[in-house]
Amino acid sequence: MMIVMKESATEEEVQSVIDRNEEVGARAHPSRGEEVTVIGAIGDREHVMRLGLEGAPGVEQVVPILKPYKLASAQIRPNEPSVIEIEGRRIGGDHFSMIAGPCTVESRDQTLGTARTVKAAGGSLFRGGAYKPRTSPYAFQGLGQEGLRLLAEARAETGLPVVTECMDARDLEPVLEVADVIQIGARNMQNYPLLAEIGRSGRPALLKRGASATLEELLMAAEYILKEGNPNVLLCERGIRTFETAYRFTLDLTAIPVLKELSHLPVIVDPSHAAGRRDLVTPLSLAAAAAGADGIIVEVHPAPEEAICDGPQQLYADDFALFAQKVEQAAAVAGKVLSAV
Amino acid sequence: MMIVMKESATEEEVQSVIDRNEEVGARAHPSRGEEVTVIGAIGDREHVMRLGLEGAPGVEQVVPILKPYKLASAQIRPNEPSVIEIEGRRIGGDHFSMIAGPCTVESRDQTLGTARTVKAAGGSLFRGGAYKPRTSPYAFQGLGQEGLRLLAEARAETGLPVVTECMDARDLEPVLEVADVIQIGARNMQNYPLLAEIGRSGRPALLKRGASATLEELLMAAEYILKEGNPNVLLCERGIRTFETAYRFTLDLTAIPVLKELSHLPVIVDPSHAAGRRDLVTPLSLAAAAAGADGIIVEVHPAPEEAICDGPQQLYADDFALFAQKVEQAAAVAGKVLSAV
Amino acid sequence: MMIVMKESATEEEVQSVIDRNEEVGARAHPSRGEEVTVIGAIGDREHVMRLGLEGAPGVEQVVPILKPYKLASAQIRPNEPSVIEIEGRRIGGDHFSMIAGPCTVESRDQTLGTARTVKAAGGSLFRGGAYKPRTSPYAFQGLGQEGLRLLAEARAETGLPVVTECMDARDLEPVLEVADVIQIGARNMQNYPLLAEIGRSGRPALLKRGASATLEELLMAAEYILKEGNPNVLLCERGIRTFETAYRFTLDLTAIPVLKELSHLPVIVDPSHAAGRRDLVTPLSLAAAAAGADGIIVEVHPAPEEAICDGPQQLYADDFALFAQKVEQAAAVAGKVLSAV
Amino acid sequence: MMIVMKESATEEEVQSVIDRNEEVGARAHPSRGEEVTVIGAIGDREHVMRLGLEGAPGVEQVVPILKPYKLASAQIRPNEPSVIEIEGRRIGGDHFSMIAGPCTVESRDQTLGTARTVKAAGGSLFRGGAYKPRTSPYAFQGLGQEGLRLLAEARAETGLPVVTECMDARDLEPVLEVADVIQIGARNMQNYPLLAEIGRSGRPALLKRGASATLEELLMAAEYILKEGNPNVLLCERGIRTFETAYRFTLDLTAIPVLKELSHLPVIVDPSHAAGRRDLVTPLSLAAAAAGADGIIVEVHPAPEEAICDGPQQLYADDFALFAQKVEQAAAVAGKVLSAV
Repeated sequence: MMIVMKESATEEEVQSVIDRNEEVGARAHPSRGEEVTVIGAIGDREHVMRLGLEGAPGVEQVVPILKPYKLASAQIRPNEPSVIEIEGRRIGGDHFSMIAGPCTVESRDQTLGTARTVKAAGGSLFRGGAYKPRTSPYAFQGLGQEGLRLLAEARAETGLPVVTECMDARDLEPVLEVADVIQIGARNMQNYPLLAEIGRSGRPALLKRGASATLEELLMAAEYILKEGNPNVLLCERGIRTFETAYRFTLDLTAIPVLKELSHLPVIVDPSHAAGRRDLVTPLSLAAAAAGADGIIVEVHPAPEEAICDGPQQLYADDFALFAQKVEQAAAVAGKVLSAV
Repeated sequence: MMIVMKESATEEEVQSVIDRNEEVGARAHPSRGEEVTVIGAIGDREHVMRLGLEGAPGVEQVVPILKPYKLASAQIRPNEPSVIEIEGRRIGGDHFSMIAGPCTVESRDQTLGTARTVKAAGGSLFRGGAYKPRTSPYAFQGLGQEGLRLLAEARAETGLPVVTECMDARDLEPVLEVADVIQIGARNMQNYPLLAEIGRSGRPALLKRGASATLEELLMAAEYILKEGNPNVLLCERGIRTFETAYRFTLDLTAIPVLKELSHLPVIVDPSHAAGRRDLVTPLSLAAAAAGADGIIVEVHPAPEEAICDGPQQLYADDFALFAQKVEQAAAVAGKVLSAV
Repeated sequence: MMIVMKESATEEEVQSVIDRNEEVGARAHPSRGEEVTVIGAIGDREHVMRLGLEGAPGVEQVVPILKPYKLASAQIRPNEPSVIEIEGRRIGGDHFSMIAGPCTVESRDQTLGTARTVKAAGGSLFRGGAYKPRTSPYAFQGLGQEGLRLLAEARAETGLPVVTECMDARDLEPVLEVADVIQIGARNMQNYPLLAEIGRSGRPALLKRGASATLEELLMAAEYILKEGNPNVLLCERGIRTFETAYRFTLDLTAIPVLKELSHLPVIVDPSHAAGRRDLVTPLSLAAAAAGADGIIVEVHPAPEEAICDGPQQLYADDFALFAQKVEQAAAVAGKVLSAV
Repeated sequence: MMIVMKESATEEEVQSVIDRNEEVGARAHPSRGEEVTVIGAIGDREHVMRLGLEGAPGVEQVVPILKPYKLASAQIRPNEPSVIEIEGRRIGGDHFSMIAGPCTVESRDQTLGTARTVKAAGGSLFRGGAYKPRTSPYAFQGLGQEGLRLLAEARAETGLPVVTECMDARDLEPVLEVADVIQIGARNMQNYPLLAEIGRSGRPALLKRGASATLEELLMAAEYILKEGNPNVLLCERGIRTFETAYRFTLDLTAIPVLKELSHLPVIVDPSHAAGRRDLVTPLSLAAAAAGADGIIVEVHPAPEEAICDGPQQLYADDFALFAQKVEQAAAVAGKVLSAV
């Protein structure tokens, strides 16, 4: 932590900052420049943060030096990115994962049909929502446990591991019976009790970045899961909220290389929710793969125009094999190979 | 709903959109202009939304006309803003509420001392956190049930109603034993299971706007509570996330008059969390009051430099009476009177 | 400048950073912590910046310590805010300025009529656009020199000093013949040749914050004017671009106290352009005044529904006296008195 | 234009809106729904906009239907994207352009050396700044006319067409003597007098998107150039301003497919300025190419650590050939071929 003093700070104010650091066990080194004094504080970050020096007399600003996350940090696994294995599929490293399936589980035919399409095109995992967070309380909220049952059936038939969302810690038990990967939606990225429960479950988690979460906040949310002893966290960029209104969210692909620099965790990209429009999903998927993402998660439906939710952004199942082929080429440019069994 | 067709749309595409609307029971009226055709669809909003016409052939854009919220809407109480009564204090209408207290309940002395200060200065309600959502899993997470017990003691001694946060539906029962108003934090604004539970409890709720939530999304979140039969929702603006890094969040005071136009619900402003710095709390509180807010919620501490969390933004308890007096003057400019017992 | 080295930085990399600083005449002090080394560099900021150390081997981040602006900084006039005098009206300090007039000069009647209204209500300065920056090349671009002539007439008749925009350095000469204050629009905040020319003219300038400019960028733009020897700069907050679409821009009132802390220059607020809607102008003006703004600039029109541009945000001239009275009350809460002659 | 009336609108208010539209020559068709009335207005957009109906009694909102740009619109060249030819290099359609060179022209050696590197690697055009817009007035502002002379020399020697920025209409004449393409920087995207002058010059223009400009505003800025009879406009995405502070700007690659849908103009991407860091330039360039960009513009320097400005983001000249090869592969995934002579 560097504490930058005001130009007008008195010697007493400088000393007071030093004293308060030392009271919580930190060492404080002042560097007296011609214009300002900067105090370097070395010690437990949380203790120093708690001092609340930002408001103290004579203090101009407090600049954190060390990252606030530890287990998610690249520094605990230097040059050794995590590769997470899900029923034989590898996520991370040189592997590229194609995660696909319908937005929502609607019916047996729709679910099994889409799962077969994903399997046939060489998909890595199958996604589908049983519990759906919806902006409107009047919108369809998912089939719930019946949806989980259909996902289990798709899994049994195709052998594809299942990714599905859990929105409520009280639903975790039934979700754990089906999910190979538990999805945490963007709205729940900072639902700390839920993160901790999923951490305690040990089940791999796909953690979506909140629509206005910084990368640091995303990694701090991952830390909540990792801290409970669950090392299997997939980070997921799914578009951030900006001033631009021509699309639903702005997909932030710079997050891919930067997250990989800051963290050892794999990075997945969700272009479907970011764009909200089918015709944008292909260019954005190719871009994500070329930028070095460890995988994408996309929505596919046999008949999107009949989908209960998010129809406009779901790919046609009939086009999926061709789509997957192009994405594979783009991943190859970034040196990655499709991960399937 | 207005469906704007592309210039290049064919007559078949126009007819297909009309047919699909009629299939879900909506009436569709095309207006054929020289350049484009616009189709007005009248029917159940959710049914029409589900059609996912944004992606359909020939469709340029889909423009919603009716607001997606109903119970939160100003239209169900034209010119009659809701006034919510909490143990004799009125929130809304011509009343201005001063809600104050420490960020976190830390100890008996700190809690009771601050409550006495708030009471003496004519405060309306007492706030204090027992469960604290923290970005870092390593930070202090609140005293939990012990904190609730101290809040109950402060309430018993001063008579001030208590506002405290609930982060987890599984904690709702003990919170309900103490809280006159349940606070829903910005990170949980779209935690739908939690909103629904608080809705079912019937207890007044102070719903904070998410850091990147639009006003429409805030009102949709309120709708989740209202829909369960709980009419007592206070909306709370607490700063939004923007590109500006000179302060923690950007307090959005335009939200005050606009929320009051869109909704009948009272609007409270939290300048402490927005600014993150004590010296900004006074000007922002005055601004909020002058702009017509129905109240403010601010943090006060007997010794902020010793506070466990958010010390830099907490007002000195010794300065609180003077602060409250100035805010009362600003509220008077907007035609409001301080609400206390 | 603090240069934070990576945990993995070698001793050679640390030394190389020290050497490169010393080559440009800066002194470099390394502080070796347990986890990272931080190097403090003291010397000419531009020289050190040019080193481009952000990309150098072993460097994690470069943290500027000193502000990049000098003449705009509060530090050159500690506790002595600038008060700028325009034909007897004082802007800054304890004075509150009411700057009002039509968006665009449209006709002699409209211009003189509005000027009389502003004068009668105790307004401080008269504003009106002769050159209008318009998003569309097909929109009305202002009356140009004919507009300047009408402003001169209004000035002669009412004695009110005139504020008008200059968009092009090639138009500066005719603008200088009329303008007591030259407005620089938000789109031109970083039009450096224009800023420098206005700096050289010595005429007071009202510099609007760009819609996505940080406060630091605004102060750097002011620095371009100040550097040419023109000390008369008024900073103007006029709303920033955020994700919220319920209003045109989000007025950032936190900028008022923060700009006043960072700089000695007066701060004016433009609620009309921020809100884009007349009914929001009153609450936002009251908020700006209560938050301690040194003035507001608002649009007034005798018949807004007939205005050539921005009609929906212009106040009715008939309502202006009452509006001005309420704003005066709000300014009083912040300890300011209306400045007029 | 659709004018949505309030639920509470009276029949007189509806009629008044219809009358006002008809006064300016527009036809107005009311559609009376059960809850609200919507009025479709067909006529000259600017005339209808000028009515300022957003503020009129009974009006809820005004929804524009037609795009405000015409010459930039895809509709004037359906399915026929513009291909702009610069000295034999084709930009747009199936062609991918590699535009590269130093941030700033610093010296003869640096300029000619880099130009030779770009030429050898198969680059399409050579970029270099003679006039540099700098946030700080104390920073290096470019070599000006001497820089232009060096660019002319590089052009003569390598045959590469030159892209260079013009910041001031008064400098246009000397810039025109050297530039094959005139760059308009992000800060000047809405400098309308400059846009119009460049439009009148007829010279191809590379128009950078402002850091907070919507795609519609970018296309409106292009319209200012096109309207003067200059059809040769290249749109350039260079990162937008968001809340994320981990990188300088957030590169918005969704803009590529969406601009290509809205407009016939070619779309170039500048990853160097967006990222501000060399190590991000490769993944972002690959992503841009895979997403279907018509080209990229990147910064290259023989010794970036000695560069006068933006060193950290400039690629090493020695690495450029390999970089160009990888980008060519990514462009191939999107079906494009490198354009060079």
